[in-house]
Amino acid sequence: MLIDVINDFEFDEGAEDLMRFALPAARQIAALKERATSAGVSSIYVNDNFGKWRSDFRALIAHCIDDDTRGRPIVELLKPNDRDYFVLKPKHSGFYSTTLDLLLQHLGARTLILTGFSADICVLFTAADAYLRDYHLIIPSDCVASQNNDENERVLHYMKRVLKADIRESATIDLTAQSRTAELRG
Amino acid sequence: MLIDVINDFEFDEGAEDLMRFALPAARQIAALKERATSAGVSSIYVNDNFGKWRSDFRALIAHCIDDDTRGRPIVELLKPNDRDYFVLKPKHSGFYSTTLDLLLQHLGARTLILTGFSADICVLFTAADAYLRDYHLIIPSDCVASQNNDENERVLHYMKRVLKADIRESATIDLTAQSRTAELRG
Amino acid sequence: MLIDVINDFEFDEGAEDLMRFALPAARQIAALKERATSAGVSSIYVNDNFGKWRSDFRALIAHCIDDDTRGRPIVELLKPNDRDYFVLKPKHSGFYSTTLDLLLQHLGARTLILTGFSADICVLFTAADAYLRDYHLIIPSDCVASQNNDENERVLHYMKRVLKADIRESATIDLTAQSRTAELRG
Amino acid sequence: MLIDVINDFEFDEGAEDLMRFALPAARQIAALKERATSAGVSSIYVNDNFGKWRSDFRALIAHCIDDDTRGRPIVELLKPNDRDYFVLKPKHSGFYSTTLDLLLQHLGARTLILTGFSADICVLFTAADAYLRDYHLIIPSDCVASQNNDENERVLHYMKRVLKADIRESATIDLTAQSRTAELRG
Repeated sequence: MLIDVINDFEFDEGAEDLMRFALPAARQIAALKERATSAGVSSIYVNDNFGKWRSDFRALIAHCIDDDTRGRPIVELLKPNDRDYFVLKPKHSGFYSTTLDLLLQHLGARTLILTGFSADICVLFTAADAYLRDYHLIIPSDCVASQNNDENERVLHYMKRVLKADIRESATIDLTAQSRTAELRG
Repeated sequence: MLIDVINDFEFDEGAEDLMRFALPAARQIAALKERATSAGVSSIYVNDNFGKWRSDFRALIAHCIDDDTRGRPIVELLKPNDRDYFVLKPKHSGFYSTTLDLLLQHLGARTLILTGFSADICVLFTAADAYLRDYHLIIPSDCVASQNNDENERVLHYMKRVLKADIRESATIDLTAQSRTAELRG
Repeated sequence: MLIDVINDFEFDEGAEDLMRFALPAARQIAALKERATSAGVSSIYVNDNFGKWRSDFRALIAHCIDDDTRGRPIVELLKPNDRDYFVLKPKHSGFYSTTLDLLLQHLGARTLILTGFSADICVLFTAADAYLRDYHLIIPSDCVASQNNDENERVLHYMKRVLKADIRESATIDLTAQSRTAELRG
Repeated sequence: MLIDVINDFEFDEGAEDLMRFALPAARQIAALKERATSAGVSSIYVNDNFGKWRSDFRALIAHCIDDDTRGRPIVELLKPNDRDYFVLKPKHSGFYSTTLDLLLQHLGARTLILTGFSADICVLFTAADAYLRDYHLIIPSDCVASQNNDENERVLHYMKRVLKADIRESATIDLTAQSRTAELRG
């Protein structure tokens, strides 16, 4: 699950800071996504609609790339393909007022791998809602980022302690095993 | 609100029957939608995703028209424009596992005009869920259709009796008044 | 699942009519509930809170019996015991703004037996929401009632046609089989 | 809103620690609740059902007091009265699978005062869900507690930063002003 990776990063407060940590994380996410695809594990983009209720996801991607926005290098690394799923979320949590839960049921997913930005807001809100719904969580520490690195560390440990999330680094995740149990989303 | 008007009608059971009643209704919906637009009232397409979780709405419209499907004349009458909103629903009710309720809150809507097919299934499910959420309902009797005309009449009277819906014909709806109270969706 | 069986029937419009059909249905529900208990099948009362947000279920039962209300004979037939579950619903559908879905997941239920009043309103709304959530429905025709008997027949056939409900009479339901698959709620 | 204040504190891990901070907080909550009642502001108990789906709230209170549990002094300080509302929550967030949102709509509440235990789990989950639903939050820092005091401070500042919560001490909240706008829950 890729949370808010399609973003133009054209906001004033803290965009540069977040970008500094988000770009290396995006590289890790891209590598993990490639391994997930090879292992037959599907990917779901869960992305803000940024208050644009009429927009669709393809239009958002085109804007980020064609308008040469600050977020362009990340969007180019993480461009979705035709096999990927996407869910537009109107608020911080991917589960609030969206069809995500039903899509996960349809896919038979019980374990979710959460990646994206920012860890301390949209990833945390989505992870908490996933935990309420009894999903097992893997949140690789090198695939999330926040504006502030200390805050990023703290929220990772919060999610480990309270949400029982597995926060190991992405390279150590055995996607084949996950795929065998038909339970993983990348 | 236009319910399931974008449909290829390429199903076996009863598609011809529904089509016979749906085409005249679609003409009434198109006329009502034009008046709504003039009155500054926005339109929301609430449409099945037909189990295609990766599809988007534009792709569905293109399929209905380009593949010369049975539903093509209706889709051509009711093609959305850039100012329209759309919500893909995975099940019969437009409110179940979608962002519709939040979109209506965002628009400040308290009265909904429901139109589309079929009256006795998706329109009824959506109307019941709208009633639970305290929306006032207008369901113009000439803008909905079902496979069976008697069933269509019965469900209209059910929605009038139980859901307190106003089922007057579309030509008699005063959209300007609705617009003044900033409360209508077409 | 017993829908709105705890009711004082102290409303003006149609209470006598509904009562006439509800009392015989209540006798069938009581017999079915007894068989369900013997078969190890649990019962859930899903009941209106009647706009009394502070009330609890026990207080409602006491009111119906102690105040000698019109609904007293039905409440006496169907008094819950300590093994029964109850869910207070603020609106017509038992699933709307309640914990019912999570309780059913907790119990592992996939098939629901719906009984109660009135068939054409609260039973229908609850059945439709159950169908959206992929529950298999048994709605025994002798265990539901409406104010109008024709309407009762019509809604039963609607639930059979659209919601794929099994509407056989209660005496013919094999509760032991249901219990073996650990899937039934009475 | 009083979150998880009715608790027997009979769990192994950290109950003593939490109790040490929770008792002084309970005294502040009791004082705030008294002022709220005087100002005509209603109180809602949002409490775990502790996996006991058949239990009701009164039975839980009786257990905490009569069985002389560790939580007894807190429950005695914060015993609800007949004018209070209560909502049993099956999971950490008071909004998940409960009727809380509809109750708040019924009361016309737009501002919520959150109090209770533990700040870093149930209060945070509930506050995040309230924020998604556009409620304005007051979370008085002396009316919440966690097992670890540093963690308590951190989560308070997180809720201030991300959820825009007002975390001033309870004595400085002007309940009369809140009541005038008919928007407060204590």
